[in-house]
Amino acid sequence: MQVGVIASVNEARADQFSHRTAIVIDVLRATSTMVAAMKAGASSIVPAETVMEARALFRPGDVLGGERFNRKIAGFELGNSPLDYRKEIVDGKRLVLTTTNGTRAVIKAMRAENVLAGAIVNASACAKAALELRRDIVLLCAGSNDEFAIEDGLCAGFLLDRLDNQCQQGIETDDFGTAMLALYRNRSEHLLETISQGTAGRRLIKLGLGRDVEWCAVRDSDDIVPRLTGDALTKC
Amino acid sequence: MQVGVIASVNEARADQFSHRTAIVIDVLRATSTMVAAMKAGASSIVPAETVMEARALFRPGDVLGGERFNRKIAGFELGNSPLDYRKEIVDGKRLVLTTTNGTRAVIKAMRAENVLAGAIVNASACAKAALELRRDIVLLCAGSNDEFAIEDGLCAGFLLDRLDNQCQQGIETDDFGTAMLALYRNRSEHLLETISQGTAGRRLIKLGLGRDVEWCAVRDSDDIVPRLTGDALTKC
Repeated sequence: MQVGVIASVNEARADQFSHRTAIVIDVLRATSTMVAAMKAGASSIVPAETVMEARALFRPGDVLGGERFNRKIAGFELGNSPLDYRKEIVDGKRLVLTTTNGTRAVIKAMRAENVLAGAIVNASACAKAALELRRDIVLLCAGSNDEFAIEDGLCAGFLLDRLDNQCQQGIETDDFGTAMLALYRNRSEHLLETISQGTAGRRLIKLGLGRDVEWCAVRDSDDIVPRLTGDALTKC
Repeated sequence: MQVGVIASVNEARADQFSHRTAIVIDVLRATSTMVAAMKAGASSIVPAETVMEARALFRPGDVLGGERFNRKIAGFELGNSPLDYRKEIVDGKRLVLTTTNGTRAVIKAMRAENVLAGAIVNASACAKAALELRRDIVLLCAGSNDEFAIEDGLCAGFLLDRLDNQCQQGIETDDFGTAMLALYRNRSEHLLETISQGTAGRRLIKLGLGRDVEWCAVRDSDDIVPRLTGDALTKC
């Protein structure tokens, strides 16, 4: 099985997705937040590329969530902090979500045959779900401000490690995937430290959101895998 | 001291070079070949972007070298194999060199205040030379076919390791640099194996050029550092 890895959303080309299962990775924080929202009972998540589109998609009874520059958007009920997605707010509701990088990456990956949301908190379950779909896989690291983000690279490496472990025939990856696997193996005992020292991690900690970083760096705390069906993500 | 790392030549933007020392990395094989050519006595190396430009720059007494699709160019005296750059051919001569990725990367880096050619064979000397220039540093991995190449990433990680070791105040790098340093530290005992399994390594081995790959994977076999002065590289 082939597993390609794309370093950031602006490097993704349409032909990299066709006939493949895409796993979109935005550890800080969109795909982690998607897992948190589904754990809290959100029935589905509609990714929106712009704030205007999110407002247009909103229907009474929905929850509107998202961020720009790491902050909640004016008039939105929730931001992009996974810790804010509590049962009493989102249980049974549809979530319309727009974030700077993560939701854009999901939309970019829509040409894939299957699209899953992967994060450190659900990586093993996500690898398992992807293997069951029996297609070559592409890991799309969302990145931050069109640049590679270390936490997404670590998650890609973790996913490669799990995929290789769970796939009987083993996997083949590209040069960038080999690098991400080595990155993960070198830093696996220091995940939170490495993420906290990255560009996005430092920025969030400075904004007082260190607890978000901690939450997003915990391996396999959940087995929920958001999967795109039509225009919305639901539980796999 | 800040050390940025660029994953491949097509990702390089002009503003990433100004006021900095650029180290251009094309382990397989352009920057390794530059070191070999200077070791064999080449007086200078003129990088040319195209075959036509190389022919135009050629003057009687020069050596014309380079490759397209890993093969010697018709009418050129030498290809891009470091092992071919022997004293009896290049000693005392000017080399006009054009390769698919490496010479293009040197030309792209020309906006930098200083441009050095780095490879695994001269990394420690290259790190030392860069530090002596007392500017922030940018490592430009040439890559292969506009994609990240594992051997260039390993060399970037090796350079970061040496820079950090040699710089009294330590260095700061970006997320991609952190990943390359971890890649190098994870694979440092298996350099040749990792490079041989990469996309470019496998291609060269298939073409019968496995000895080139072996030569290019030896750490610090030389202390020659090619440095750009005007339009040509000379010994630092």
